[in-house]
Amino acid sequence: MQIRAVDGIPEIRPGDDLAAAIGREADLDADVLCVASTVVAKATGRYADLADYEPSDRARSIADRIDRADPRFIEAVIQESEEIVLEDPFVLAVTPFGHVGVNAGIDRSNAPGGDILLLPEAPGEHAAALRDSLAAEGFEGGVIVTDTSGRPFRAGQRGVALGWAGLPACRDYRGEHDREGHELEATVEAVVDELSAAANLVMGEADAGRPAATIHGFEFGDHDESDRLFRDRETDFVRQALATFDVDSQR
Amino acid sequence: MQIRAVDGIPEIRPGDDLAAAIGREADLDADVLCVASTVVAKATGRYADLADYEPSDRARSIADRIDRADPRFIEAVIQESEEIVLEDPFVLAVTPFGHVGVNAGIDRSNAPGGDILLLPEAPGEHAAALRDSLAAEGFEGGVIVTDTSGRPFRAGQRGVALGWAGLPACRDYRGEHDREGHELEATVEAVVDELSAAANLVMGEADAGRPAATIHGFEFGDHDESDRLFRDRETDFVRQALATFDVDSQR
Repeated sequence: MQIRAVDGIPEIRPGDDLAAAIGREADLDADVLCVASTVVAKATGRYADLADYEPSDRARSIADRIDRADPRFIEAVIQESEEIVLEDPFVLAVTPFGHVGVNAGIDRSNAPGGDILLLPEAPGEHAAALRDSLAAEGFEGGVIVTDTSGRPFRAGQRGVALGWAGLPACRDYRGEHDREGHELEATVEAVVDELSAAANLVMGEADAGRPAATIHGFEFGDHDESDRLFRDRETDFVRQALATFDVDSQR
Repeated sequence: MQIRAVDGIPEIRPGDDLAAAIGREADLDADVLCVASTVVAKATGRYADLADYEPSDRARSIADRIDRADPRFIEAVIQESEEIVLEDPFVLAVTPFGHVGVNAGIDRSNAPGGDILLLPEAPGEHAAALRDSLAAEGFEGGVIVTDTSGRPFRAGQRGVALGWAGLPACRDYRGEHDREGHELEATVEAVVDELSAAANLVMGEADAGRPAATIHGFEFGDHDESDRLFRDRETDFVRQALATFDVDSQR
């Protein structure tokens, strides 16, 4: 399996034809194309200015509890979220498409067209649209819209998938057996996340100019498929535990 | 960057020379060698029989609350853990080397030499020992001992690093800036986890006979290094939240 950074993509601005910009530079003979959510967000104009957000009482209350927090920014996070999982010491939120991320994935460092850059509205639909556009140029692979994200238990960030099209999210090994005939314990493998992590290694920080990568020689293999990547609240005990957590009790 | 599964490694048994078995089949002109923790555990004889565990009161109490749980297995998990983060509906535990995993990573499906297969005792030391042995054959890269692990918020498992040697765990971007001069938000990238995820895509389930993979063309790059991969309790709010969580309150 080979992973290649796509070089030469120019800075993307609202209204730019992202598929064309990628298609000019990428080797379209790939099995998977990974595209950073930042450029999808930029192409679809997901910039915003903090001045446009009028902080609600909840935003003010949360901002009061977080060091150097801007209540307008917290309001933006609330508006971009379906649910707030943790209010402080940092805001962890569920986006409408199911991703759990700090500040609902809103980026403050990466927004030349405004104060902040929101996540793409529907990464799965953007992945499908990119795939359709590139199919016209002969691309037959899958598309993943990727992000970087922290996680519990482990330090640092790693690449993750926000949306995907043209490949399943997971290999489902349930019912398969190992060499000794034992049923496998690790039953579902989140391949779109693993592909995003692999791509992130060569993309580096998206604004180094490599907001896309192609993956060659990836085979999903003869396994069952699952397209469920985001846990729902009912089956996610960590999400439930955080909702009942009082950080002050730990201080 | 290229990722190649290492084919032809035979079933590993206690006392086998794992470095020799890998060295015979792997392309040692690699930047990184990923080795599944299962074969490290097998080579170092980390098999155990449930009959050897006498359940403590805590093990019995936990087993009572989990469907079809064997109190001897729960006792094994307790003995392999430094801390139990969550007791039910499943046991989430911190291993002595800092990894947080369900059942302390103990494998019930993959243990031809016993009822269960424990995780390697000190994956970082095993990675260093493997690296030293392979250096004698000309290998100059890093070694990662990998596992697959579930995670909060997202369904499915993905490859993660348990131990590593000869490369840093993380790229530290703190202080670096993007194209527009803004300081980067995603400040630490857990490259050993991303490499493990990439390797897992071609290793598949370890007992399909591909318990190792080599990575070629990986460059750490000119970044600061960090070797901290496992969060400690004090900075991990999820771990704190789970410790105070009562699952029955959610039912």
